[in-house]
Amino acid sequence: MTYRAPVADIAFTLTQGPGLARALAHGGELGKEDVGAVLAEAGRYASEVLAPLNAAGDKHGTPFKDGSIAMPPGWKEAYRGWWTAGWNAVSLPDRWGGQALPHALNAACIEMWNSGSMAFGIGPVLTMGAAEALDVYGTDELKRAYLPKLVSGEWMGTMQLTEPQAGSDVGALRTKAERAGDGTYRITGSKIFITYGEHDLTDNIIHFVLARLSDAPPGNRGISLFLVPKFLLNADGSLGARNDLRAHSIEHKLGIHASPTCTMVYGDSGGATGYLVGEENRGLACMFTMMNLARLAVGLQGVGVAELATQQALQYARERKQGRAVGSASKESSPIAEHPDVKRMLLTMRALTRAARAICYATAGAIDESRGEGDAAKAADARAALLTPIAKAFSTDIGIEVASLGVQVHGGMGFIEETGAAQHLRDARIAAIYEGTNGIQALDLVIRKVPLEGGAAVRAYLDELRTTVKAVQAANDPAFGATGARLAEAVDSLDRATQWLRGKIEKEPQAALAGATPYLRLFGNAAGGCMLAAEALAALRLSEGEPAARVAIARFFAENIAVQASGLERAVTEGADSVNAGDAALA
Amino acid sequence: MTYRAPVADIAFTLTQGPGLARALAHGGELGKEDVGAVLAEAGRYASEVLAPLNAAGDKHGTPFKDGSIAMPPGWKEAYRGWWTAGWNAVSLPDRWGGQALPHALNAACIEMWNSGSMAFGIGPVLTMGAAEALDVYGTDELKRAYLPKLVSGEWMGTMQLTEPQAGSDVGALRTKAERAGDGTYRITGSKIFITYGEHDLTDNIIHFVLARLSDAPPGNRGISLFLVPKFLLNADGSLGARNDLRAHSIEHKLGIHASPTCTMVYGDSGGATGYLVGEENRGLACMFTMMNLARLAVGLQGVGVAELATQQALQYARERKQGRAVGSASKESSPIAEHPDVKRMLLTMRALTRAARAICYATAGAIDESRGEGDAAKAADARAALLTPIAKAFSTDIGIEVASLGVQVHGGMGFIEETGAAQHLRDARIAAIYEGTNGIQALDLVIRKVPLEGGAAVRAYLDELRTTVKAVQAANDPAFGATGARLAEAVDSLDRATQWLRGKIEKEPQAALAGATPYLRLFGNAAGGCMLAAEALAALRLSEGEPAARVAIARFFAENIAVQASGLERAVTEGADSVNAGDAALA
Repeated sequence: MTYRAPVADIAFTLTQGPGLARALAHGGELGKEDVGAVLAEAGRYASEVLAPLNAAGDKHGTPFKDGSIAMPPGWKEAYRGWWTAGWNAVSLPDRWGGQALPHALNAACIEMWNSGSMAFGIGPVLTMGAAEALDVYGTDELKRAYLPKLVSGEWMGTMQLTEPQAGSDVGALRTKAERAGDGTYRITGSKIFITYGEHDLTDNIIHFVLARLSDAPPGNRGISLFLVPKFLLNADGSLGARNDLRAHSIEHKLGIHASPTCTMVYGDSGGATGYLVGEENRGLACMFTMMNLARLAVGLQGVGVAELATQQALQYARERKQGRAVGSASKESSPIAEHPDVKRMLLTMRALTRAARAICYATAGAIDESRGEGDAAKAADARAALLTPIAKAFSTDIGIEVASLGVQVHGGMGFIEETGAAQHLRDARIAAIYEGTNGIQALDLVIRKVPLEGGAAVRAYLDELRTTVKAVQAANDPAFGATGARLAEAVDSLDRATQWLRGKIEKEPQAALAGATPYLRLFGNAAGGCMLAAEALAALRLSEGEPAARVAIARFFAENIAVQASGLERAVTEGADSVNAGDAALA
Repeated sequence: MTYRAPVADIAFTLTQGPGLARALAHGGELGKEDVGAVLAEAGRYASEVLAPLNAAGDKHGTPFKDGSIAMPPGWKEAYRGWWTAGWNAVSLPDRWGGQALPHALNAACIEMWNSGSMAFGIGPVLTMGAAEALDVYGTDELKRAYLPKLVSGEWMGTMQLTEPQAGSDVGALRTKAERAGDGTYRITGSKIFITYGEHDLTDNIIHFVLARLSDAPPGNRGISLFLVPKFLLNADGSLGARNDLRAHSIEHKLGIHASPTCTMVYGDSGGATGYLVGEENRGLACMFTMMNLARLAVGLQGVGVAELATQQALQYARERKQGRAVGSASKESSPIAEHPDVKRMLLTMRALTRAARAICYATAGAIDESRGEGDAAKAADARAALLTPIAKAFSTDIGIEVASLGVQVHGGMGFIEETGAAQHLRDARIAAIYEGTNGIQALDLVIRKVPLEGGAAVRAYLDELRTTVKAVQAANDPAFGATGARLAEAVDSLDRATQWLRGKIEKEPQAALAGATPYLRLFGNAAGGCMLAAEALAALRLSEGEPAARVAIARFFAENIAVQASGLERAVTEGADSVNAGDAALA
């Protein structure tokens, strides 16, 4: 199949949604045409260079031999072409060679890289996150030595948290750091599930490793972050000695076969040389700078793979003919896309994908706004914090659902690997797991994000959703069907569930936690539905961005997906007892 | 992981649910102890012999060479042990060597074979279906020649419908049959996606092939069914000449790797010898005899793989420790099963699995009752027809969902193939597609099954569900929480959606068809929820079958899953316009 980057679609959501709209309205240096040009060029690279590598990369995998990993044929060239064109540096700081463009614009690019190939897309995400963290927390010396090449992408970065006993519970990690006496540290231990831990795409790989000093307090407050390069640097910045670290093995995974997932070993010969990033024992805060961006980026992987699966299913459903659709004028077989049941699948795919895209771009837009000064920036910071777990978990959950529907639309062909639809499902499955499982995202939303600013952040967001609902109702356009009414109910459900949770978090945390996952889904459904409606209203107002299509998809979402709100609300507010009293059923 | 057949669970659902209960109450030859003995022995074979082959079979696949297929190591012995123990013949006619035990009992066995290995389980299902069809439609000569060995399982059978242009639209098939003049036929053409089309498990393979005579009317009314053996039989019944057919290639699939899926070619040398089953041009009716049983069996594959995934996730969640659960008395890390969010996943897995099991066994029980005489048998026949699409589609949809949750419970380990959780998701994915996609099942439910007996069949079923709801409410047991209220709402939603559909099927079929899939899910949710509640009531009444566990799971289902009913009802009754007017959004 051919991926065609939906550049016009993406540009509309980006510039009309709550993401880039305000930035463009402020009349900065960046104009609408620049946005269009960047997106078009990124779309071209994603569809013409990355997409053709996707199936072959899946088949080839990343053979591991003697500590080295050979990437699939063509990947090295594709990666080189990608970073030399500046794609790694889109939203990274200009003081280190980046382009300092909005994160929202980079978010759209990240979506497209991942439509091209999820296995490719995950690598740079970690490099970008590492560069951001180093820029905030690194010493000037470290920045000068490493940032230019991490910003450009000439070197890639990794994030290393996980150990066998320390997955969601990062605080349980045991990798050791010892002060070497010269300001550097010696790192010993091992890490698992390290994405792009070893490969031949770049001359050097810069590992960001969480480890524990021997005199550190236990748990989360005793973790430090170290920069540990694969090759140490000579005084002139050239590559020096090989550091005391290696990839020990790679995993045989369900999907993203072309993304090497490594077990890393540090200190075979006494300890790898590491450089402290930030303060001792404050490593988790640094890592969270990387994690928040990475979480949004993983959400975008969900969007990217969902878009790809939708395109492929649509293409197949338009070509494949079976049976005669009811009411078809022709006596011949109809394309299966004309059968109402298949149409429902295709619309579900498109609606969920568009909703997740809007949520992710809005999150990125809030990150951009949070980088300014004053109350608006502070509010945007809370908004970004609130939306990040939803962007990550909702988008990756629907990524799986959409990819699975894509298999279903293909019928028997969907189960055959050559068709490619199954790869999307296999690839999509990881995104709900890594960078904090979706369960962890839901807990983060309930425990940390809903209570932000004493609840003001979530209240402000609910108000904004209600503004959209009222605008839809005021439009009074029959093409919207019951969109206004269904979205109003969904937002009411979200509001009630939010209030219920806020009342429980302190006194009955178990009850609040039991409903975290349905609450996050409810949030995503209500927010996504309102965003699609807001896009439709904007398209009508501007007579651009295909108004009829946007109204149709907003209506489909409201009448068929947002209507799950009442059931989800009930699971949150009335389901907790049956969860917490459910042990008998699990005996 | 180790699969342990949940024999006690299964026995309870089987004997207390609407399946076998009436048969046992009638006091026939079969006693409750016999049922227990059969289940225990089947459970032993599934867990001790089949389950250990599952992962190795997945890895090994079925290499294809020179038209032959070598099954994975150990499979031939396991199959031989299986059929010689009588497992193929459980519910097949005793006049041909079968045991003529209830289909409901065989359904429980089929579930267990598929928990052991889905790739194994699908093979015999086709043999059993072929034997049933041949018994009903075959000539005495054909029966004598083939039935004893198809009933025992010494030979396996296949079902051959699909061709590249004829998938869901069987009527479009082109494989040709010509009368040979001696009462036999010459078959030429090719078939795709033929499960167990070639293998080395049995000496002969008996293909049941749909083909078209040159003078046949077009479409579904011009299709005939032929028995086409791999090896022709000599007059004494011994294997004779190789027939003019061969496997041409096998598919590289997402899952069930140990189930060989073949492209078959007929007539390289003028035509394979085929024997007519039933009448010319009436082949589809014969095939539907096989298909209906196969559909139920595929639903049972969904149950089987869901049970397996649930067991594996539970085992992992009890052993894997991460973080401290809120309220935990210990200062150590807690098993993740104690975290409310993980508990919700585990309960969802168990609840959906149990509900699907109950629906499938009830369908099998209705088939058993339909084999009698009189009005009760007639009503049971309609009941079986009504429930079959739900048994197939609901169970296989939840099979995928449960297997996907199983991956999620494992976190990063779930994405690693060695863990095994991912295989269940890969395997489960096909069951929603083959034997009629779940979309086709939903259309069958709406177009053919809801209108059965002028709607009396579905009305009678709704009444039965209401009886359960009233019994839960009358029990007035606080352990049930809001089970009665939530199930009452779900059944009301189903009732309204049913009435709405019945009003549309004739006049606005497109509107009815657009809601077929959410309607089927609504039906499964309401029926499954009521069945779990009925089991809980029975367990309380009898003080057996772990009443507390059954009440807990019924309550969890009602309060967290059945509550989706209102959203599904809306998608059915208010969502059709947005589907049928959705073309703009798919341009």
